[in-house]
Amino acid sequence: MSLPSQVKIVEVSPRDGLQNEKQFVDTAIKIELIDRLSATGFQNVEAVSFVSPKWVPQMADGTQVMAGIKRRPGTIYSALVPNMRGFEGAIAAKVDEVVIFGAASEAFSQKNINCSIAESIARFEPVAQAARDAGLRLRGSISCALACPYQGETPVAAVVDVARRMLALGCDEIDVADTIGTGTALRVGQVMRAVTEVVDPARVSGHFHDTYGQALANILAALEAGISIFHSSVAGLGGCPYAKGATGNVATEDVLYMLRGLDIDTGIDLDAVADIGHWISDQIGRKSSSRAGTALAARKAA
Amino acid sequence: MSLPSQVKIVEVSPRDGLQNEKQFVDTAIKIELIDRLSATGFQNVEAVSFVSPKWVPQMADGTQVMAGIKRRPGTIYSALVPNMRGFEGAIAAKVDEVVIFGAASEAFSQKNINCSIAESIARFEPVAQAARDAGLRLRGSISCALACPYQGETPVAAVVDVARRMLALGCDEIDVADTIGTGTALRVGQVMRAVTEVVDPARVSGHFHDTYGQALANILAALEAGISIFHSSVAGLGGCPYAKGATGNVATEDVLYMLRGLDIDTGIDLDAVADIGHWISDQIGRKSSSRAGTALAARKAA
Repeated sequence: MSLPSQVKIVEVSPRDGLQNEKQFVDTAIKIELIDRLSATGFQNVEAVSFVSPKWVPQMADGTQVMAGIKRRPGTIYSALVPNMRGFEGAIAAKVDEVVIFGAASEAFSQKNINCSIAESIARFEPVAQAARDAGLRLRGSISCALACPYQGETPVAAVVDVARRMLALGCDEIDVADTIGTGTALRVGQVMRAVTEVVDPARVSGHFHDTYGQALANILAALEAGISIFHSSVAGLGGCPYAKGATGNVATEDVLYMLRGLDIDTGIDLDAVADIGHWISDQIGRKSSSRAGTALAARKAA
Repeated sequence: MSLPSQVKIVEVSPRDGLQNEKQFVDTAIKIELIDRLSATGFQNVEAVSFVSPKWVPQMADGTQVMAGIKRRPGTIYSALVPNMRGFEGAIAAKVDEVVIFGAASEAFSQKNINCSIAESIARFEPVAQAARDAGLRLRGSISCALACPYQGETPVAAVVDVARRMLALGCDEIDVADTIGTGTALRVGQVMRAVTEVVDPARVSGHFHDTYGQALANILAALEAGISIFHSSVAGLGGCPYAKGATGNVATEDVLYMLRGLDIDTGIDLDAVADIGHWISDQIGRKSSSRAGTALAARKAA
């Protein structure tokens, strides 16, 4: 195994983790979550989105959240934006990075936004241009990169095609996201090796869900394919809209536990993150879905 | 990745999975569990133990369980035995394989059975001899092969030493067991490569716990090190006595899901196993701790 010596973790809990919570999470809690995470050393926190509050009411307070946090030098605060209106909100809130997105599955693209993959990405051109003009970082997220709920396994060529289009838009970083968590290690390695033939591996990230328990094995396969940026969510916040009651985002604690054992530096203290995981789980009244977090707490209590 | 094309799963739920259940599980349920598992195609089921019922009351009905099951040709039914008295029970019950055990940690051996590792294994000599004389298969299980609750990480050399001693006893198969689930992929690869220098890789199995969420990544690392036998427990039955409320044995459903994605043949149908996982979880009033099992059920319900 030849693995990277350093990994960047993109902590997505404040946005991707909380966005599906039905009960509105107080702005003050969101701010505290982001501040606790940045204080722990995360280099990149997916903090907010500027999507219509009609679609995602939980994220309606993005402006207030960004105004309330303590900016930690060295941390990139990212915002998901679907269009120019979202971009205006993001730039007014002084985010460091704008995240655009597109599916690698035609069926998913058609069913969800009623246009082709190519059209969906072309629509982001003005956002990408504006981000570049403003000197912001731009990240492109490829959803359904392993499979989609409508057409099953996604062809590798479709993922590579979206990656190429995102690169052409000027993306600094490109996510390969297993949105429904059905991917397994062999396929993850294949997809990552194909994507890194067209994108510098240092600019590709892996976003894995633990719905079928595969996330850490998939991260290991991605590490072996040369990937060194991973998304995760403290306490596994996020769930899975495609399988009610199932796990969604891989838990940051579990990822950090594995990386520590692999002698890979992240600059982040696992115990401090486990504490954040328990705090936020308490705040929103959920049981942590992090196995390492649960075991560490049990050991602490014993 | 060069991986084996076939893997043998040793299903341990009837013994290792149920033994810590406080509420006695009816003999009829144990029998039905074993019969359902063998009908699904498992080649090896860890069915019972013949340990003093004072120590493990849950396993007191081993004789009745073995008398009640329908023997499936091609399935090996294993029994854990601590001594000659246990062996007598096992042979009377016509088990196919006898399982002996020893820790790779001196501290664990001293604290648990008040003798050294070498002594603990020497004590199994009469059992091993009797098993060989009776033409039974003999399996040796090395507990605390990654770490122990008292002395932390286990030296690789200590694991290899126990493996050598078990080989000398005539073991047909040798388990490398991460009893407390703290192991991670890099170390698992190191231990497996070291053990397979002294034992034929085809006779080495990996027994991983998911306490820190690491089990599938560890199995992947073990596969890459040439291991092709793994232990697992349907619905993740078993828990972890060293971290209350935490996960123990890796869930068979999660392992099968990964192996299917790796194009590795097990001869076992995942959906049938998921059904067994839900049935037994209902019977004993527990929530399945299999992520794949939970997601498959959610998808079925949707």
